[in-house]
Amino acid sequence: MSDVLGLLRAELGERVDTDPGSLDEARADKSGHRSPERGIAVVHAASVADVQATMRIAHRTGTPVVVRGAGTGLAGGANTGRGEIALSLRSMDRIVEVRADDLLAVVEPGILNAALNERLAAHGLWWAPDPASRDISTVGGNIATGAGGLLCAKYGVVRDAVLGLDVVLADGRLISVGHRSVKGVTGYDLTALMIGSEGTLGVVVGATLKLRRLVPGTTRTLTATFPDVRAAAVASAAVTASGAQPAIMELMDAESLAASHALLGLPSPLTGAAQLTVQTDGIAAADEQAAIAAVLTAAGGAVRLATDDAEAAQLWQVRRSMHPAMERLGTTLIEDVSVPRSALPAMFDEIARIETEFGVTIPTVCHAGDGNLHPNFVFEGAVVPGHIWDAADALFRAALALGGTLTGEHGIGVLKSRWLADELGADQDALQRGIKAVFDPTGILNPGKVFASQP
Amino acid sequence: MSDVLGLLRAELGERVDTDPGSLDEARADKSGHRSPERGIAVVHAASVADVQATMRIAHRTGTPVVVRGAGTGLAGGANTGRGEIALSLRSMDRIVEVRADDLLAVVEPGILNAALNERLAAHGLWWAPDPASRDISTVGGNIATGAGGLLCAKYGVVRDAVLGLDVVLADGRLISVGHRSVKGVTGYDLTALMIGSEGTLGVVVGATLKLRRLVPGTTRTLTATFPDVRAAAVASAAVTASGAQPAIMELMDAESLAASHALLGLPSPLTGAAQLTVQTDGIAAADEQAAIAAVLTAAGGAVRLATDDAEAAQLWQVRRSMHPAMERLGTTLIEDVSVPRSALPAMFDEIARIETEFGVTIPTVCHAGDGNLHPNFVFEGAVVPGHIWDAADALFRAALALGGTLTGEHGIGVLKSRWLADELGADQDALQRGIKAVFDPTGILNPGKVFASQP
Repeated sequence: MSDVLGLLRAELGERVDTDPGSLDEARADKSGHRSPERGIAVVHAASVADVQATMRIAHRTGTPVVVRGAGTGLAGGANTGRGEIALSLRSMDRIVEVRADDLLAVVEPGILNAALNERLAAHGLWWAPDPASRDISTVGGNIATGAGGLLCAKYGVVRDAVLGLDVVLADGRLISVGHRSVKGVTGYDLTALMIGSEGTLGVVVGATLKLRRLVPGTTRTLTATFPDVRAAAVASAAVTASGAQPAIMELMDAESLAASHALLGLPSPLTGAAQLTVQTDGIAAADEQAAIAAVLTAAGGAVRLATDDAEAAQLWQVRRSMHPAMERLGTTLIEDVSVPRSALPAMFDEIARIETEFGVTIPTVCHAGDGNLHPNFVFEGAVVPGHIWDAADALFRAALALGGTLTGEHGIGVLKSRWLADELGADQDALQRGIKAVFDPTGILNPGKVFASQP
Repeated sequence: MSDVLGLLRAELGERVDTDPGSLDEARADKSGHRSPERGIAVVHAASVADVQATMRIAHRTGTPVVVRGAGTGLAGGANTGRGEIALSLRSMDRIVEVRADDLLAVVEPGILNAALNERLAAHGLWWAPDPASRDISTVGGNIATGAGGLLCAKYGVVRDAVLGLDVVLADGRLISVGHRSVKGVTGYDLTALMIGSEGTLGVVVGATLKLRRLVPGTTRTLTATFPDVRAAAVASAAVTASGAQPAIMELMDAESLAASHALLGLPSPLTGAAQLTVQTDGIAAADEQAAIAAVLTAAGGAVRLATDDAEAAQLWQVRRSMHPAMERLGTTLIEDVSVPRSALPAMFDEIARIETEFGVTIPTVCHAGDGNLHPNFVFEGAVVPGHIWDAADALFRAALALGGTLTGEHGIGVLKSRWLADELGADQDALQRGIKAVFDPTGILNPGKVFASQP
C-alpha cells in the first residue's frame, strides 16, 4: 500500500489526496451505504493522462480502483474501501466541443448534468437525460449508471443519448468506441456496453453526446388527485394507453404526498389520497394537457390546471419535496424497480401486500410515464435492518414477476448485487462475468460491485 | 459432414433441406457476393426448439452455423459456404403479442418488417426502423445488422427500438436479455450488444420491440434541385442546422438522378443537377415543410412542393428507382459510409476526388437527414475488380478521416471485414474478439464474418 502511494505520488504529486476527510467522503454515496474502512487515496484526475497514469500503477500493483464522479449514486457503486484507490473525475469538467449543426457535444465526464445543460441552452440545445440529481450529478456518473429521469418516456434515457465514448482500460490504454455520425454499426456496440457498467469495464474519460434542440413553446402543468394510489395508477396507465404523450408524469402515493405536505406546511391531503402531476410540452402542450385532463377526470381524478408558471412551480414543489420529507422521518433506502406501465396498478397492490406482510410503510413515488417506481424504506440508524431487506427482497421478486426489473435507473452497485443473478439467470450471469473478465482480467475495476462474489 | 446431416435429420426431419437450389440460394444475399461453395444443409427452423436442436448438434460436432432471414443483406453476412449449416428463421414469423398500452410487441424473428407494420397499424402502432428493404427484409435480420433506414434522424434506428431479446447460445441454451419495461439497467446491456452482431454471438429467436403510435396528420413532400451535388449537400446540412426536422431527407447525386430519370422515361435532368427529396410529418408537417422550403430556396435550390399525395408518390418514385436503375448499368457494389451531417459536403468532395483518381463513376444516394451515404460502384461480371476495391478503400478512409464510419446500417459481413480493425484500432478489435470468444468459444457462429481472420 505504501508502495502504491509512493508510485502515485511520484507520478501525480498533489493530485494524490490522503486527507482523512477526503477518504471518508469517498467511502459513501447518497444511498446511505458506507464502506466499512477507508481507501488508500483519492486521486483527483485533471486529465486523461492522469487517469492513464493511475490505471497503469493500479495494473502493475494489482490495486483496485473505484471511479467516482460527484458521489450522488444510490446503490453504493462508487463507495471506496480498504486497499482501494478512489479515482475522482470530478475535476475533468470541460466542454470540449459543441456542434449545433451536428447536434452533438464532446465533454469530459466530471461536468454536472445541469451545468452542461445551462451551457447548451445558449446554443438552443439540451442533453435529454434528467435524473432527479441533475443539479449535483455528473455526466460521467449518469453514463456509468445508465441514468434515466423524469422525461424518459418522451425523450429517452442515457443509452439513447450517447454517440461515443473515450475509455481508459484497466491497464491504462485509451480506446475510443462509437462514432460522431447518427448511424454506425461497425463491430459490437461497445458504447452501449459501457453505459450502465458502473465502473467495472473501464474509465469513461470523454463522451460524445447526442443533443436535442430546445423544445419550442411553453410547458403546461396539472395535478389530479385520487382517493387512493391504485386509482391513480390505473389513471396513469390510462393516460399512456390513450396515446397522449406527457413530457413528465409523476405519481405520489398517500404516505409521500402527506409527508411532502407536512414539510411544506400545506393542509393535509385527504387520508389515503394519491396524486399525479403531469407536464406537457412542445407546440401541442395545451392540446395534450386538455386530452390528459379529460382522461384523468374520466378516471375519477380531481384535476387542477396550473394557470401560470408560478402555480406550476408550486405544484412541482410538492413532488420535489419528497426526498427531504423522507429524510425527516429517518434513514431511507430508496428502491428503484421498474415495470411495464400497464402493470403499475398491480405493482402498487404488491407494495400494499408487502407493507402488511412485513409491518412496514413504503412511501412510494413513481415516474408513471415510464413505469419506474421509487419505494422508500424508512428506518432508524445507519444499517439497513434485516426485516427491511426481507421486504425489499419481496419487492424485487414482485417486480420481476410482473415483467419488470430490479433497477430502472440507479444501478446494482453493492446494494442490489445479491439479486443480480435472480434477474439475469445463471447462464446470462456467467456471460456477463465473462465480458467483465475480457475488459478487466485481473479484477481491479470496482471489484465487489455489480457482481458481488463468485456464483 | 454426413454424420452432421444424419444427426440433423434424426432430430429435425423434413426441416432439413439439401436441395441444390436451396443450398445455392443460401450462398448469396443481395450484395452480389456468393460463397464459393455450397453448405451442408438449410435448416428451416419452425420453433425455438428447432433452433436449440440445431445448435446442440452444431456444438457437439463443431459445425459452423450461419443464421439467415430473408437473405436481403448487403454485406454477405448471411452467406453460407462449405461445411456450414444455414439456419433459416424465415418460417418463425409469428406475432406473439401486441400491447398498445405498453407500446410493445413480442415477435418471432422471421416476420417481414412491412408485414409487421401492416399488422401493427390496425392497433394504431408502428415499429420505426424502416430500411429501404422493409418489404422484403425480416425483423430478425434488421436486428442482426442494426438496421437503419430513411426515417432515422427523426425516429431512430433498431438500437433505439428493441427492449429485449430471446437468444439461443452457441451450445443450444436459451437466454432472455433486456426487459419489458421502458427503463432497466440490471447488468450489462446485452440487448444492445446483440443488435448488429451479425449472427456471431447467438441466434435471436424472439424480440420485444419498442413501438410508437402512428404519427397523426398527413405527410408533406417537396423536392429541391441544385446545380451540383455539393450545393445540395450544403443545403441539406443547412436544413439540419436550421432546427427544422424532416422525417425523411434524401439526396441523389447527378449520376443517380439521371439514371432514375432514364429508367422512368422522364426528361433528363440538367447536366450535373442533384436533388433533395424531403418529407415532413406530424401535426406541424405543413409548417415544417414551409420552413425547410425557405432554407432550401435560400441555399439556391429550385423547390417544388407536392400538392397532393399522388404528386408526392411521383416524386418519391424517382428516389425509389435508384437501385433498379443501377442494376440496368451492371453489377453494383453498394457502400454504406456515414459521416456527421456537417461533413456531407466534404464527403461528396472526397467522392469526386476518388472518381477522378480511380477513373470510376460512383453514383451516390444519401440519407442526408442522418449523414449516411450509399455510394454505388458499378462494374461488369460477378467479381468485384481490384481497382473498385481500391476505390472503396479510399472511400472508407475518407469517411473515417471525417469522423465517420465505414458502415452506417448494412454491417460488416465478409465484404468489409478487412477494414474493421482500421476503424476500431487494434486494442478495441482485440476486446471485440474477446467478447466473441465469451459467447462462442468454439467459433461455430458465422465464422469468417465481421472478424475475417486472426489479426
